[in-house]
Amino acid sequence: MKKNVRKDEIRNIAKRLFIENGVKATSVNEIVKEAGIAKGTFYIYYNCKDELIDEVFNEISIDFIKHMFVDIEHKNNVPKDEAVDHIVDRAVEGFEKNREFLEIMKNDISNNKEFKYKRNFIEQFKHKFESSVNISINEGVLDSDVTLYIIVDMFIGACYNAIILGTPYTIGEVKKNLKGIIHKVLK
Amino acid sequence: MKKNVRKDEIRNIAKRLFIENGVKATSVNEIVKEAGIAKGTFYIYYNCKDELIDEVFNEISIDFIKHMFVDIEHKNNVPKDEAVDHIVDRAVEGFEKNREFLEIMKNDISNNKEFKYKRNFIEQFKHKFESSVNISINEGVLDSDVTLYIIVDMFIGACYNAIILGTPYTIGEVKKNLKGIIHKVLK
Repeated sequence: MKKNVRKDEIRNIAKRLFIENGVKATSVNEIVKEAGIAKGTFYIYYNCKDELIDEVFNEISIDFIKHMFVDIEHKNNVPKDEAVDHIVDRAVEGFEKNREFLEIMKNDISNNKEFKYKRNFIEQFKHKFESSVNISINEGVLDSDVTLYIIVDMFIGACYNAIILGTPYTIGEVKKNLKGIIHKVLK
Repeated sequence: MKKNVRKDEIRNIAKRLFIENGVKATSVNEIVKEAGIAKGTFYIYYNCKDELIDEVFNEISIDFIKHMFVDIEHKNNVPKDEAVDHIVDRAVEGFEKNREFLEIMKNDISNNKEFKYKRNFIEQFKHKFESSVNISINEGVLDSDVTLYIIVDMFIGACYNAIILGTPYTIGEVKKNLKGIIHKVLK
């Protein structure tokens, strides 16, 4: 019990520091200092910083997926294009509210080594999408998870350019075109 | 005449330094030192470093487009999907041979402010594609240039992950799925 509480504390502190300063700029030293624990204690819970990053991002991803599927996740016959539009709207709204999150997703993570959270995200997303829309994505809709992965990265990149850099197109234009692309890919 | 020669020299030196060390790590000071000219002379030709970056990238883009359209650019009835496959193969081959170029396209440029070379790239690409395949992209094929822009960024990002990071999928898998996505988007 005590062990989990302390692990949660470390994760919450890391999450806040990641969002405030970025993942790369946040060291294990800073995290243990904020948590008021010895460095050795940190390594009881986590083998390395990457393992912690993975857990923090997994937590953020779960919240983000919940946010995207609000209103449709307990239905099971949502028309495919309607579900896509809903999810794109909610995802963009989520990124607009959490610019820091979008920024670290884009810069600190996707440019880096592979993290498990991304695979979990894709698994969970697929599961929720399939149950809301009542289809099987891998049967004739998408070639494979590789396509889903590429689409997720495309989505993050396009939102980053529009929301964070504000160039060359507005988020309104980007949103409309992302919907169009995804409708076609899911045909 | 002399003026153009010197401007070309500066651009060639910058291109080499950008590829060797990255765009961000290359200063105007280094460029003028290598060129053996005074800093004031640099500013006769370019208003700022960004203008030089734009010219260098424009030059690289033109070469890259030429490479992508080899064998099909003088035809004018290439089937759409066949043209896409050809262009994807050639682009991936180009990135594999010029990893540094892919790296700076991904990191130093797309994360940055807007550069004109990207719009030129899209314009030229559209022009060559339309004349090889003999269609008009904006008439019913793509919603708008925004879609083309998003697809170009998606392409660079996916190639970067596979070729430079080697994760989570191989370039072979990514190439196959990129073709699938683009076929669908161009339907």
